[in-house]
Amino acid sequence: MTSQFSKKGEAWSARFSEPVSDLVKRYTASVFFDKRLALFDIEGSLAHADMLAAQGIIGAQDLADIQRGMTQIRGEIERGEFDWQLDLEDVHLNIEARLTSLIGDAGKRLHTGRSRNDQVATDIRLWLRSEIDQIGALLGNLRRALLDLAAQHSATILPGFTHLQVAQPVTFGHHLLAYVEMFSRDAERMVDLRRRVNRLPLGAAALAGTSYPIDRERVAKTLGFDEVCSNSLDAVSDRDFAIEFCAAAALVMTHVSRFSEELVLWMSPRVGFIDLADRFCTGSSIMPQKKNPDVPELARGKTGRVNGHLIALLTLMKGQPLAYNKDNQEDKEPLFDTVDTVVDTLRIFADMVPGISVRAEAMRNAALQGFSTATDLADYLVKKGLPFRDAHEAVAHAVRICSDRGIDLADLSLAELQAFSPLVTDDVFGFLTLEGSVASRNHIGGTAPAQVERAIAAARAKLPPQ
Amino acid sequence: MTSQFSKKGEAWSARFSEPVSDLVKRYTASVFFDKRLALFDIEGSLAHADMLAAQGIIGAQDLADIQRGMTQIRGEIERGEFDWQLDLEDVHLNIEARLTSLIGDAGKRLHTGRSRNDQVATDIRLWLRSEIDQIGALLGNLRRALLDLAAQHSATILPGFTHLQVAQPVTFGHHLLAYVEMFSRDAERMVDLRRRVNRLPLGAAALAGTSYPIDRERVAKTLGFDEVCSNSLDAVSDRDFAIEFCAAAALVMTHVSRFSEELVLWMSPRVGFIDLADRFCTGSSIMPQKKNPDVPELARGKTGRVNGHLIALLTLMKGQPLAYNKDNQEDKEPLFDTVDTVVDTLRIFADMVPGISVRAEAMRNAALQGFSTATDLADYLVKKGLPFRDAHEAVAHAVRICSDRGIDLADLSLAELQAFSPLVTDDVFGFLTLEGSVASRNHIGGTAPAQVERAIAAARAKLPPQ
Amino acid sequence: MTSQFSKKGEAWSARFSEPVSDLVKRYTASVFFDKRLALFDIEGSLAHADMLAAQGIIGAQDLADIQRGMTQIRGEIERGEFDWQLDLEDVHLNIEARLTSLIGDAGKRLHTGRSRNDQVATDIRLWLRSEIDQIGALLGNLRRALLDLAAQHSATILPGFTHLQVAQPVTFGHHLLAYVEMFSRDAERMVDLRRRVNRLPLGAAALAGTSYPIDRERVAKTLGFDEVCSNSLDAVSDRDFAIEFCAAAALVMTHVSRFSEELVLWMSPRVGFIDLADRFCTGSSIMPQKKNPDVPELARGKTGRVNGHLIALLTLMKGQPLAYNKDNQEDKEPLFDTVDTVVDTLRIFADMVPGISVRAEAMRNAALQGFSTATDLADYLVKKGLPFRDAHEAVAHAVRICSDRGIDLADLSLAELQAFSPLVTDDVFGFLTLEGSVASRNHIGGTAPAQVERAIAAARAKLPPQ
Amino acid sequence: MTSQFSKKGEAWSARFSEPVSDLVKRYTASVFFDKRLALFDIEGSLAHADMLAAQGIIGAQDLADIQRGMTQIRGEIERGEFDWQLDLEDVHLNIEARLTSLIGDAGKRLHTGRSRNDQVATDIRLWLRSEIDQIGALLGNLRRALLDLAAQHSATILPGFTHLQVAQPVTFGHHLLAYVEMFSRDAERMVDLRRRVNRLPLGAAALAGTSYPIDRERVAKTLGFDEVCSNSLDAVSDRDFAIEFCAAAALVMTHVSRFSEELVLWMSPRVGFIDLADRFCTGSSIMPQKKNPDVPELARGKTGRVNGHLIALLTLMKGQPLAYNKDNQEDKEPLFDTVDTVVDTLRIFADMVPGISVRAEAMRNAALQGFSTATDLADYLVKKGLPFRDAHEAVAHAVRICSDRGIDLADLSLAELQAFSPLVTDDVFGFLTLEGSVASRNHIGGTAPAQVERAIAAARAKLPPQ
Repeated sequence: MTSQFSKKGEAWSARFSEPVSDLVKRYTASVFFDKRLALFDIEGSLAHADMLAAQGIIGAQDLADIQRGMTQIRGEIERGEFDWQLDLEDVHLNIEARLTSLIGDAGKRLHTGRSRNDQVATDIRLWLRSEIDQIGALLGNLRRALLDLAAQHSATILPGFTHLQVAQPVTFGHHLLAYVEMFSRDAERMVDLRRRVNRLPLGAAALAGTSYPIDRERVAKTLGFDEVCSNSLDAVSDRDFAIEFCAAAALVMTHVSRFSEELVLWMSPRVGFIDLADRFCTGSSIMPQKKNPDVPELARGKTGRVNGHLIALLTLMKGQPLAYNKDNQEDKEPLFDTVDTVVDTLRIFADMVPGISVRAEAMRNAALQGFSTATDLADYLVKKGLPFRDAHEAVAHAVRICSDRGIDLADLSLAELQAFSPLVTDDVFGFLTLEGSVASRNHIGGTAPAQVERAIAAARAKLPPQ
Repeated sequence: MTSQFSKKGEAWSARFSEPVSDLVKRYTASVFFDKRLALFDIEGSLAHADMLAAQGIIGAQDLADIQRGMTQIRGEIERGEFDWQLDLEDVHLNIEARLTSLIGDAGKRLHTGRSRNDQVATDIRLWLRSEIDQIGALLGNLRRALLDLAAQHSATILPGFTHLQVAQPVTFGHHLLAYVEMFSRDAERMVDLRRRVNRLPLGAAALAGTSYPIDRERVAKTLGFDEVCSNSLDAVSDRDFAIEFCAAAALVMTHVSRFSEELVLWMSPRVGFIDLADRFCTGSSIMPQKKNPDVPELARGKTGRVNGHLIALLTLMKGQPLAYNKDNQEDKEPLFDTVDTVVDTLRIFADMVPGISVRAEAMRNAALQGFSTATDLADYLVKKGLPFRDAHEAVAHAVRICSDRGIDLADLSLAELQAFSPLVTDDVFGFLTLEGSVASRNHIGGTAPAQVERAIAAARAKLPPQ
Repeated sequence: MTSQFSKKGEAWSARFSEPVSDLVKRYTASVFFDKRLALFDIEGSLAHADMLAAQGIIGAQDLADIQRGMTQIRGEIERGEFDWQLDLEDVHLNIEARLTSLIGDAGKRLHTGRSRNDQVATDIRLWLRSEIDQIGALLGNLRRALLDLAAQHSATILPGFTHLQVAQPVTFGHHLLAYVEMFSRDAERMVDLRRRVNRLPLGAAALAGTSYPIDRERVAKTLGFDEVCSNSLDAVSDRDFAIEFCAAAALVMTHVSRFSEELVLWMSPRVGFIDLADRFCTGSSIMPQKKNPDVPELARGKTGRVNGHLIALLTLMKGQPLAYNKDNQEDKEPLFDTVDTVVDTLRIFADMVPGISVRAEAMRNAALQGFSTATDLADYLVKKGLPFRDAHEAVAHAVRICSDRGIDLADLSLAELQAFSPLVTDDVFGFLTLEGSVASRNHIGGTAPAQVERAIAAARAKLPPQ
Repeated sequence: MTSQFSKKGEAWSARFSEPVSDLVKRYTASVFFDKRLALFDIEGSLAHADMLAAQGIIGAQDLADIQRGMTQIRGEIERGEFDWQLDLEDVHLNIEARLTSLIGDAGKRLHTGRSRNDQVATDIRLWLRSEIDQIGALLGNLRRALLDLAAQHSATILPGFTHLQVAQPVTFGHHLLAYVEMFSRDAERMVDLRRRVNRLPLGAAALAGTSYPIDRERVAKTLGFDEVCSNSLDAVSDRDFAIEFCAAAALVMTHVSRFSEELVLWMSPRVGFIDLADRFCTGSSIMPQKKNPDVPELARGKTGRVNGHLIALLTLMKGQPLAYNKDNQEDKEPLFDTVDTVVDTLRIFADMVPGISVRAEAMRNAALQGFSTATDLADYLVKKGLPFRDAHEAVAHAVRICSDRGIDLADLSLAELQAFSPLVTDDVFGFLTLEGSVASRNHIGGTAPAQVERAIAAARAKLPPQ
């Protein structure tokens, strides 16, 4: 065989007077990262071959040979026996060369009516689609873990913070549900963008389509694509789907970073609201007392990585003329690493959440400080007839005095409270309790335990099957 | 009443012993950029007041007063007569203070059961929803303009490039349709993300909900929201929708940048495929001959701005603990500028596309150089029975010789062609024509004029109503 | 005068058959943001005119006229009387048109031997240089404020954290000095990059230089530039200096964000290490007890803005061919906003630091929890002869037991301590004190009070003059 | 040995009740990427051990054992025989465990007075310093290659473009020198930032310094550091140097992207100014005529990667409280990949530049079109006494007529030229030549061949030794 494959080390074709230099070969090769597409490359090739045979472009025997050869290659890859060669540049040429060495001429006919430009675009969409499905399931697992923990704490009270200052009491279940909302939106976005991933570029060939009588709808159906890409120039150069995925992934990691920030804070001894299971923490080489929340910290740090990959891809595509340019090869590593980061992080978080020990007493004590029911006192006065702005001022005065004396509102006597407003009567203390405060916020989205339970049920109904 | 409003210049409340410094006031104020939300703030307040009255939380007369006052304020704003005050910090307090000065006590009751945290989140969603709808329409206009131009050039041939090297002939209509695809995906994304924008945060109050018997579903219905936000902590701190919008906007601008790159290139005298109408160009202060494609260049540059805003928002939200933090005020300027950039750019591009003069002769001449039909010659040899890889090599030899002699493949004599392969007969010249080449790519997504016309019809069917 | 200026509303020149559309005019105009360069534009023009006269390119009377006209224009601008016109596109044409209307023909001669391309590059460098000098001074002020506070707290002990877990006791002065280091590096970077800003592009003309016998060294000297740019094509298209500045600014804001994170945390009631003066905080419209650290939160959020501008500029320049392209006009707004953000933030922080109230007792109490002297106990055992790894294990056992019992190491009796290692004697308690721990870290860069005082003196010596 | 090392798979210490899970171990381990620091880790350890012995903290025999053990380990690593273990988490523990297994107790004493926090900071600075030096040399090589090519083409004329429109003729040597300027600034930045990299963190220990009597100046001197870091908290948490390096690297890649854009454009058949040596290009699997400029395209794409890493690091550090947090482990991969990208790219470009074939005739022909000497004609008229703005208009008229007729200015007869201005005489044609135009721009930074030669000599003088 004097095929192109054996001559990669020499020159591209008769068009070239010298071979690619070794440095260039390494600089431009992709096989060491794109080989992770191998099984999808085979799946795409088999669908293409099936169509070629159905259309009479190749013979039935060719198809059978290709299927046989690909079965063997898939096995070699899965067993780690496949011999990947830098000289063959990328995953596609490696597999095609091996196929031709196994089955001869039929292997050379596989590339009929396609090009590497539409082939790689197909492979990466097939791969990404399967990863999106996995991420959808993992987002479900994480929400399930959060819902289970929330269900145990629908009435556990901690201070709700704004500006890291104590604002109003909330339930821990309610707090956790905020993250369930975030990860639910992430799952919605995965569903939405999957439709734009799940379109078939194959058939665009190099850029203009092909003169062979191909049947793109058949290939799409075989591979489970929703549609075929409608324009060949766009099909080979479009990387929107990768960017859109990375943007959605950046939001996933942003949510993880926010949750992580809280976990680290809650586990800090100054706060002490929770403890993480030891298996998610590490110690220190010199400080024997240390137990560090490494997992949430590292996850928080990994947000940067995904934001960076998003920018890498946007920079890559900025100002690129049609159609395919070699720049596009740079799409893979950021995308691969984004998927790995999100998958690993979601998996470890779904595992970590059930290992959170809640220190309800510490949460409750914290809610008793910082005047978390000041709003309730103001509302009380409003209901007694005071205009809200006056009520706000009266309570602010009371808070200032308590603050100076180092006590809470509920520590004031009735007489002291009446000094701020004569409207206060002895029913006031019921409104200053944490339980009264949270129970009163009893509407859709509110923090009352009854609402939390209702919200948990609603969120469970939206979970994907396990 | 010595209300809060009049005392902003002094101190927040009795809780504070000194007023905010002037430098701090300027640093933290938002009124000079968030006043663009004013009409949406009024719309949201009216829906809130309507609900408060329906629930009996305020009286019918209060509602009537609020409606009357807001009508006047809206007029003042629209006529540019409203007196915006830095001392009142933001759009919400400015309007509420004016309302109270106009209608008295009812104005003070408007804020019952809400907080600025949920109020601003509602305003910005109402505003963004309307901008998304505008962008949807503008994306439609731009696609319509591209389709009209494509329809005139379904058979105009230019070289299709990969790596800016001549690859295969394509039709200009087909090339334009690639951009129609991109802007169609942008429109899809706007539809998808609109669902996540169109959820009502109002009712979350500061962070935990409110003890007043509010009816969030009623407010949602009045304001045209699809759903209510399910968790109060999430509702006041969620900025996903802004980030998702900016990511989609970054893709719009990425597409604009790619089209701009081509317009600039096509208008360069070395290429000369098109001319832009003079009204989209500027000259030079010292070079009298210059006509510069300023609009596409500037649009290309503006891609950076939107990518930057996306990063600004992602950085903003990274690691933020629940619930509202002042950091979030930084969400507005990037979002506002992103909308302005996208709206202005789409409007000007929809206007510019009909002003593109196509130089079909220059396009055709360019396609005649660079061996654009080399693939067709290889395909010809394959159909005559030569294995593809051998055909590829034979044509590569022919190309090299033509290149050395400075001629095209079609300039070779039959005898010369036969020297590369004895399979060549005199029907070969039909396959080397540009028209034959493009016509042969006649499948969904291919460049054949018939397919281009079909694709234009399909794309027109997906346009929004004008 | 039928000059170019009056015809901007019509068409660029005889080269154009139609005027720029209004939409295009607004899209491409820069005058509403670049007018902030006005005084530097005048300064640059005066230096250019001086050189033209010295070289005999214009006459002495022309120079006198230009100087007179510019003096008047500067006054008009400073008094806010200058009539900026969109039709005149940018700051340069606005000023030149006004000059010509004031002094006639001499105004038309000012543009000899230069172009707007080198003119704008000169203006922006002059402006940025002055802002860099201001930022250098502000970084000095902030460090001075931190040093003053550190000097008061060279022996105030708080827990040093790693992973937000208590690690070892440190002094608050030492902690503040970490930020002094960061802002010192920022100042170093400003000095370094100033050299690359301070090079003169004027004389590059449009892109290739000019045929007039100009003297660039003279202009450079007049304007205080260190060097002239060595290549005309580079001079008009280089925006490295803006990117380098934004990268340095992003580091400034990163440092501010870290300090802000700590201020917010320290002021949270769960930590309570400090209080910020009321004038840097705001309250809540509905929660009367709130005092929110708005300034550090907002500053932390503004980090995103600057990171975004950096990306905007990098995206802008990516893949731009030589020489000037209209994309470059997009350099200004990100750069202007970056400067404003850094200047405002540094000013307000320098003002805020002296308003920090330190709660030394809360800091000390916190250091007494969390086993902050566990390392000291391990070191004690090592000095008594135990291998470090065994000492580490022994202390880890002790910590675990204390943790289970809710007590600190110093609360163990001598007998209990000896149960972990027989090497313990009654001198151990001296090593478990906070004061002993910090005092023992007495080397360059260590936390011992003596070192802190030494480091303060060294840092003061590096401050710029006030 | 019951050391910490053997128990990593179980639990951190007696403080922990369960071992780290396998998933966590993989998620948090760094050994598979930080092992590239191994030789610097050894270098740092040897300097530390030397100081410990000099200060009497360890004995002379311990030092000798450590030196012997490290020599063996270095050999094992260099020969690829070292057995890296995931269970040992990172490069530091892997080496220390091996050392202890080789030399026993002395190995356990090596960690005295340091922590992994300051150890890793030291390693990465040592490594980065050596890479910066390499990059400095590579930037020198690339400039040398550009200067050699420029020297061959100091008088080769091509059109200078602004807005990709023909502006004025320039020399190719002059054009190349613009890139020499850019890469010179890059080299300056490397020198500047190296000073901030080259500071010693060792001695900061975990965060607060150490109670052992260490001599940091000695270690700094041994390792060639310029200074010691002045604050221990800053020393272990500072990653400014990595960010500053990545920002400088992003500028290097931005320059590479601009040069690449031009190479791709110049090699496009529509332009045809240059050819790249075949060894830097690849062909197509289906288009036999293709020769694609893969290297510059890929390099242009890699700009995105480096911009992304910069954002990753900035995001990472945003809002991190002092001192060390696990997030910081995420600093390495972006930094490593940035260095690899810059090093590979500079190396391949320095190799590629001498392989550029210049098509001087095509350049010259292009400069003859597009009215590149229109400014010269205007200047001619000014020198004949016409006000510049009138001259500009006259030439614009002439250009428009030539453009309509498809001819150049020099193709007009004297009579035709005089129709635009009676000042024209027959000496005008000398000013319309390309050679006359470029020669006239004869000042510092101008495009005249004499200036180009002067600039080449000046740039050569600034090159680092080879």
